[in-house]
Formats: sequence, C-alpha cells, structure tokens
Amino acid sequence: MSKNDIQVLKGFRDYLPNEQIARRKIIAKISEVFERFGFAPIETPTLEYYELLGGKYGEEGEKLMYTFEDQGGRKVAMRYDLTVPLTRVIANYPELAKPFKRYQIAPVWRAEKPQTGRYREFYQCDVDIVGSTSMAADAEVIATLEAAFKSLEIGEVIVKFNDRRVIDKVLVDLNIDPKDSLNFMRAVDKIEKIGEVEVSKELKKMGFPPKILESYKMIINDECKDFVTEMENLLSGFGVSNFVYDPFLMRGIDYYTGTVFEFILKDKPEFGSIAGGGRYDNLIGKTLGKDTPAVGGSIGLDRLFAALQDAGLISPQTAAEVIVLNLDPKLTAEYLNITTNLRNAGIDCEFYYEPNKLDKQFKYAEGKNIKLAVIFGEEEAKARRVNLKDLEEKKQVTVDMDDLVTEIKSMLW
Amino acid sequence: MSKNDIQVLKGFRDYLPNEQIARRKIIAKISEVFERFGFAPIETPTLEYYELLGGKYGEEGEKLMYTFEDQGGRKVAMRYDLTVPLTRVIANYPELAKPFKRYQIAPVWRAEKPQTGRYREFYQCDVDIVGSTSMAADAEVIATLEAAFKSLEIGEVIVKFNDRRVIDKVLVDLNIDPKDSLNFMRAVDKIEKIGEVEVSKELKKMGFPPKILESYKMIINDECKDFVTEMENLLSGFGVSNFVYDPFLMRGIDYYTGTVFEFILKDKPEFGSIAGGGRYDNLIGKTLGKDTPAVGGSIGLDRLFAALQDAGLISPQTAAEVIVLNLDPKLTAEYLNITTNLRNAGIDCEFYYEPNKLDKQFKYAEGKNIKLAVIFGEEEAKARRVNLKDLEEKKQVTVDMDDLVTEIKSMLW
Repeated sequence: MSKNDIQVLKGFRDYLPNEQIARRKIIAKISEVFERFGFAPIETPTLEYYELLGGKYGEEGEKLMYTFEDQGGRKVAMRYDLTVPLTRVIANYPELAKPFKRYQIAPVWRAEKPQTGRYREFYQCDVDIVGSTSMAADAEVIATLEAAFKSLEIGEVIVKFNDRRVIDKVLVDLNIDPKDSLNFMRAVDKIEKIGEVEVSKELKKMGFPPKILESYKMIINDECKDFVTEMENLLSGFGVSNFVYDPFLMRGIDYYTGTVFEFILKDKPEFGSIAGGGRYDNLIGKTLGKDTPAVGGSIGLDRLFAALQDAGLISPQTAAEVIVLNLDPKLTAEYLNITTNLRNAGIDCEFYYEPNKLDKQFKYAEGKNIKLAVIFGEEEAKARRVNLKDLEEKKQVTVDMDDLVTEIKSMLW
Repeated sequence: MSKNDIQVLKGFRDYLPNEQIARRKIIAKISEVFERFGFAPIETPTLEYYELLGGKYGEEGEKLMYTFEDQGGRKVAMRYDLTVPLTRVIANYPELAKPFKRYQIAPVWRAEKPQTGRYREFYQCDVDIVGSTSMAADAEVIATLEAAFKSLEIGEVIVKFNDRRVIDKVLVDLNIDPKDSLNFMRAVDKIEKIGEVEVSKELKKMGFPPKILESYKMIINDECKDFVTEMENLLSGFGVSNFVYDPFLMRGIDYYTGTVFEFILKDKPEFGSIAGGGRYDNLIGKTLGKDTPAVGGSIGLDRLFAALQDAGLISPQTAAEVIVLNLDPKLTAEYLNITTNLRNAGIDCEFYYEPNKLDKQFKYAEGKNIKLAVIFGEEEAKARRVNLKDLEEKKQVTVDMDDLVTEIKSMLW
C-alpha cells in the first residue's frame, strides 16, 4: 500500500461538506428541542477504564468493544454507548441535583461487521432523566424525541410503547419461569418482521406451552389497562400526536424495568426503529452501589439521516452564499473590501483568490452550490457599480456599490 | 477499586452542564464565523490506519499517539491532529474543487503527561485552505481566526506573523548550514519566555557565531519588507485590526514553508498562544504523492476556554429558563398543558415531576440557574391566574393564564 492509497478504515466514514453541513443542521435542531424540554448537555470522554464498560453489554458487546492498553498500562475501552458513562457521572458527582436531565450527542464505537447502514463509528442522540420514578418522566422522554422528529419535518412518526412490569406480570400469570422470560420477549419482538405464525412456531420449538401467544394477548389487554390510561394521559398532556400501545413491543435489552418504547416512520415502517428507549431503574445501581431510577431514549442519527436522504429531504448544501470573483488582480483591495463588508453584514461569503478565466470561476462556484456571484471589473470600478449574478436562476442585475449589501440580503433571505 | 470508585481516566474530563453549555455556545460562535468566511465543515473518523499518522509528528508524537491493534488485526491510531487526516481526504477525493476551504472542530488525543491546562483529550478548531499559493489565502486564515475571537468578545487579540522563506533567506545570508536552521529557529522561538540575552547565550553554546542574533535582526528587517507590505495590505483588506510583524516568531513545527503566525491576548500575553498556524506547501505531497499548497490555522479550544473563565466571561448557564412547579398532583394535566404551551412558544422549560415541598423545588430551580418559576395551585386554577416568580430578582407577579406566554417572553428576552 503506497501512502496515497491509504483509505478510511472499513466501517468508518468521512463526512464531506455537503453531508456534514446537513448533519450539523440536524444535530442543531435536535439539540435545540432537547434544550426546550429542559435537558442540559454533558460530554464524557471517548476513553473509559475497561472496568467500567466491561460486562455491561453482554457477550456480543464484549466482542465488539474497542479495548486496548494505554501508555500507562491501563486497560481502556472506547465509548460503546452513552448510557454507561452516564451512570459513572451520576456516581462521581453526587452533587448533581436530581432529577438530573441530560442530553449527549456523540459518536460511539462498535467493531460490527460492516454492512449497509451499519458503521463502526456512529452517533447517538440520547436524553435521560435520572432520579425520578414518576411516569411523567417516561412520557416526557417520549415527548422530547417526538418533538425532535417534528422539528426535522421528517413526516409523521408513531411511538409504540409497552411496560416491562405488565409483561412480567402476565408471564407470571402464565406460569412462565422468570429465567425464560427474556427468551419469550426476544422471540415476540420479531413479530413485526416474521409475523405471529412464525413466532408461535418458534416459541413452541423453544418449549413454551402451545397457544402461549394467544393467552399472552388475551391477558395483557386486561393487565395493561391502568398503565395505558395513565401513559396516554401523560403523552397527550405533553403534546405527543401519534402513540399506540403495542403488547408485542419488548425491546431485547435486559436492563429495562418499566416503560419501553420505539419510534417508527408512519409512511416508512420498513426503515425500522428510528429511536427507542425505556426505564432502567437498576442499571445505575451497578455502578453507584445504590439503586437510582432512570429513564431515557436514544435517536440513531445515522439511520435517521439515511431516512431523510431517502425521502429527498437532504438538499445540496453550501458553506458560502456569495462569491466575489477575481477579474483583475489590480482590484484586490476592492475585492477584499467587498468581501469584508458582506461578512460584516452577516453574509457567508468567499473571495476567489486567483484571476482565472471566468468560466473556471463560475464552475467552481456552481460546484459548491454558491447562490450569488459578485462580478466587478475595471469598468464597474469606475462606475462604482457591481454586477450580481444569480447562479441558480442564471439572471444578472447591476446595482450601485452602496446598495450591494441590501440587494444581496433581499435576494438571499 | 470497587465499581463506584471508577473515575474518569487521568488527563480526561467530564464536561458537566454548566461548562458544556458554555463550550457549546463558544463552538457555535466559532463555527458561524468560519462559515461566514466560506469554510465548510467536514468530519473525519476518530481512528485511522497507523500507517497514515505514523512518522508524521516526530519522535515525540510517536510516543504520545494512542495506537492499538483492532479486532481485524489492523494497526490503528487515534486522531492526533486534524491536519494529517485532511491530507488523506485531499488524496482520497480528487473531485473536491480547489481551493478547498474546510473547517473541523473535533477532539484529538495525545498521551501527554497531565498538568494544569494540558489534557489527553482536547479540542482543536481548524481552518485550512488547500490548493492555492495566493497570499490572500494566508491572510484570510488569519482574518477568520481574528473574527472568531471578536465574536467571542474575549478582549483584543494581536496576531504576530513572520515568513519562513524570509527566515531561510536570512540564514543563508548568514552562512548558517540549512541543517542547523531548525535548531536556530527553536532557540529564537524562546525569546518571549527567556529574553534575548539568554537566547544569545544558548545560541553561542550551540556553536552559532557570536552576535548571530544581532546580525539576524539587522538583515531580516531589510529582507522582510516586501512580504510585510503585502501581508499588511491583505490583512487590512480583510478587516484585521491588530497585527504586527515579529522577526522572532518561528513556530517550531518543521512542516511550515511560508507564512507563520500566532495569536495572543493583548491584555494577557502570559496566556501564551491561543491560536496559530501557517503555510505548509509540502505536507500534503507526503500523502498524495504530488505537492499541493496549503495554509491553515488552529484555535486550541481548551486554552481559550480557560482564558474566558479566567476573565470571568463564563457566566452560570442553564438549560431551562422556566420551571413549572408541582403544587398538587391533581393539577398534573394543567401543569403539562402549561409546560407544553411554553415549549411550543420556543421557551426552554421543565416541569417538576414530584409534588415535593416548595422549598425543595425552589432550591432545585436555583441550583440549575433557572430564571422563572410558574406557581399554580388550586386557587390559581379556579381564578385562571398564574403566579410567576423571578428567581434572580426574588420578585413575584400574578398574570392571567392567557397572558402567560407573552409575559414570560417579555421577562426573558
């Protein structure tokens, strides 16, 4: 491999300007909504002691985690999710007032087998509320995520919800051994993908009683009533538009202890879950030594971005809105002056450094999706006038130098 | 070490809400200025092939770089700066139009010996222009960084600049062997810290001719004239306020080939360089195989943040501006309704979940620097009125429920 053949690592990506500008806008909107709902940002390190992360994500997680020994001989691990580092923060800073509402939008790393839409470095957007058992907190997490989706104008989303405590109670009613309940839940979780018939077969093969799924459905509709009524009232109160109780929603992660939920796109359910979460009242206790209730949710930024791209909602982006072309190096002082005036007026603007052929300069500007070009040569300099070309609509106007900022603002905004 | 003793790794930090809100505002302002100057964001991965980063940062860099073998047996390294990954991007995507103006604000990792103000994970804010030899590009990088500092209202900054080509020419005039020139530059770079007398002694000890520093000063003032005139014109044109030619500014990094520069705080020069950079026309060639001119600069976010803190410019931060207190659980639907109305009006707001004693609720709100509390009990519900308490000024007003949003907006904005 010669030096100029060095590529990005498998499962990793570069975000070039067009994509990165769009991603930054999405992240900004999500952050704004999270703050509107009273969540404050925190940031935790990329590396943690392996001792913190190890054993927290099951056998699979152990294999996928990036771990190594640092220069000081410490065994360290790269952030695998945003939840376990949060438990350390709660343990390390007991002075943080509870309920502690935080958000974090940051990359995590997992050495997954690379496949379409799955990467080894990907962003999670998490909100969590630590220190409250109130179901209002559960509902508020859901409301926050729904509001984030609304702000992205991604189309209607639906949140499906369930309660692990209800599920557990039903499984007890059905005489399912608690040690088998996670297996039952993981099988039922596949109903959306493979249908009830296939799941029934699978449950039978696993040794569950026949008709277990039918019995489960019958009992849970009674058992869930109180929970569903309360949750629906809270969700409505927080302004959530589309929610539905789903007795089959399980979420495979074993640390959930109460509400679980998942968001899908109403018109594109095939995209699968674009966000999910739930209540986990025991996880923090594993780090802190004493149980602390918590509920949280997470948006997978990469799947969301793919959905937005697929829906044609990611338009071509530009950093600069205006370019000042270079017709004559003797006019450099004028070009710099125009450029600086536009910037001082808050207009994103660049100056083309070299006096290349105009064709080349236009091609450069169009390639970058720049909207307006300032054309200013010897003649214009004498007349104190500027030619302003709209590169999208291919129209050109001539304006007085003194009116340039006003004219550009009216064309852009 | 028991689980709840697990701390953050040495040299790493958690950013809790107060600090993180302030950091996010700083990053947002810097990004906004970078875009105003026509730089577009990119993002490169945290991990790269070791082959890309190895040998690029000298002996010291080799020791400080976090490297390990991944699950696929690849030797990988954590990002050490933002410049070398940029060279790979330039090599991998020849379709990127030149000049390519990009910015990246991201953490980098170096296993430095931890000391005050020095961390193993820290943020760099880089702007670079690739593909132009124009000195206007050099000046624009400087102008961009100065504008970023102005937007932070950090006080006056001064940029000192020099030209490696001028320095090299003077050293040739003085018959200094080119292989000794980096040693000369590194010694002279210390003048600010230890003064001319000490540097002269050091140079003598290193075997340089006596009075070398005096000769250098005399000749460089003649040799630099053209460069200084051109640079001063460009900097003025781009609106830079405070700049000064510094014949002693060297910057020790060996890849610079032209302009070098450094920013200091006018009133706090003891803080040292808060940003720096220069032209590096050969570095990209090492990755790409063919030389490509480039110039760039970098703000060290952490030193900047320390300077802002020191200047008392980091005020207490809050995520939510308003809190809806919980006086009576029977009024939950009303509380949610008020909360949701405020949020829909764009007001950052939280709802206190538990009907705890009011004292406790006020203490919580004040601890989080929340400005206004909505107090709404049975009586207020009957009268459709709301008590609004300003937690900073300890004043309370009563307003009609219908006027609540308007009243709060006028109190906050």
